[in-house]
Amino acid sequence: MKIYDVANFPNPLRVRIALAEKNATSHVTFIPVDLMNGEHRTDAFLAKNPAASVPVLELEDGTFISECTAITEYIDQHFSGPSLTGETAKERAIINMQQKRAESMVLDCVAAYFHHATDGLGPALETYQNNEWGQKQKEKSLNGLAYFNTVLSSSTFLAGETFTIADITLYAGIGFAGFAQIEIPAELTHVHRWLTLVAERPSVKQ
Amino acid sequence: MKIYDVANFPNPLRVRIALAEKNATSHVTFIPVDLMNGEHRTDAFLAKNPAASVPVLELEDGTFISECTAITEYIDQHFSGPSLTGETAKERAIINMQQKRAESMVLDCVAAYFHHATDGLGPALETYQNNEWGQKQKEKSLNGLAYFNTVLSSSTFLAGETFTIADITLYAGIGFAGFAQIEIPAELTHVHRWLTLVAERPSVKQ
Repeated sequence: MKIYDVANFPNPLRVRIALAEKNATSHVTFIPVDLMNGEHRTDAFLAKNPAASVPVLELEDGTFISECTAITEYIDQHFSGPSLTGETAKERAIINMQQKRAESMVLDCVAAYFHHATDGLGPALETYQNNEWGQKQKEKSLNGLAYFNTVLSSSTFLAGETFTIADITLYAGIGFAGFAQIEIPAELTHVHRWLTLVAERPSVKQ
Repeated sequence: MKIYDVANFPNPLRVRIALAEKNATSHVTFIPVDLMNGEHRTDAFLAKNPAASVPVLELEDGTFISECTAITEYIDQHFSGPSLTGETAKERAIINMQQKRAESMVLDCVAAYFHHATDGLGPALETYQNNEWGQKQKEKSLNGLAYFNTVLSSSTFLAGETFTIADITLYAGIGFAGFAQIEIPAELTHVHRWLTLVAERPSVKQ
C-alpha cells in the first residue's frame, strides 16, 4: 500500500505512529506531496482526496482512503498487534469518543489558530483567514487541554490504561500547538507526565 | 440504557435513526435535556459530557458516552442486525471516511452557519458569534453537497450500496440545512434522489 503525505506534518504523524504501533511501517511506500507548492489542490490530487488534505492511503486495489481516523481504522483492522481502536462495544465507544474529543477540543482548534491567526502556511496557501476565529480557537484548545489534564489525573492514557488512537490524536495536537507557539501551561502536570510517557514509545521516538 | 437528548435536534436524530435501524429503540429510555434553558451547561450535565452537547448515552454500569459516532459505534456493536459501520477493514475505513466527510463538509458547516450567522438558539445561548465565519461555512456546506452529488451519481448510498452511518450524518446535516433555511440546489439531482430514498426508510419515517 501507499501513503501520500508530508513528513512531520501533524495529520501524517498520526498515521505514521499508528503504523509503527502495529509494526507495519515497512509495508507502506510513502509518496511525498508537495503541499507547500499547492500539489494538494491540483485535480490529480483532488481525485484522490476531494478534501485536499494529507495523508491519503492507497490500497493495492486502487481504493483511496483519506481522513486519519479512517486510515487508522484500516491499519488497525488489517494488521495484527494490540488494538488501537478497541475490541468490545464499550471499549470501541470510549476510544471513539476520546479520539473525537482530542480532535474537536484540541487538534482542530490548534489547526484553526495556526491557519487563521498566524501566517500559517503563507499567503499563497492561506487564501481565507479569520483572525478572530483563530484566536477564539486557541482559547478553546487551552480549555481542551485542561479537560484532558483532569482525565489524565485518574488514568494512564486518554481512554484508560491502554495507548489508543485517542492518545495519538492528542499527541499530534500538542506537537502542532508547539509548532504554532501555543505553550502548554506548566500547571497541567498530568498532561506533561503523559507527554513524557508517550514520547518514550518506540512508535513516537522513531 | 438511557439517552439524554432533545427530540428533533440534528445530533439526537442521528442516534435515534441508528437505534431504529437496529430495531433497538425500545431498549432505551429517553431523558429530555432542557437545552433551551441551558441545562447542558450546568455542572450536573457537564459531569456527563464536558463538551456540553446532546445526545449522551448512559450504559447500565453508569458509563457516559457522548459524540454521535461513538454512541452509534456502541449501538452498532451491541445490537444485532445489519451493520451501520461495516465489517471488513476496507468497508469500515470507507464508511468512517464518508461519515467524517458528511460531518466536516456538510453537517458541521451548517451548524456553524446556524450558530454564527443566524439568531441560532437566541442571545442567551449564542454567547459568541462570528458572522463572517458562519457565512463562509454556509458556502463550504454547498460545496460539500456538490461533492456528495457526484458520489451519489454512481452509488446508491454514500459508502456504496448499503445504508450506513455516513448516510445518517448527511441526512441530519441536510435536515439541519432546511431548518437554517439553506436551500439544497435543485440541480443536485442525485442528492435529491437519495434524500427521497432515505426519507422512506422506516427508521427515518418514525
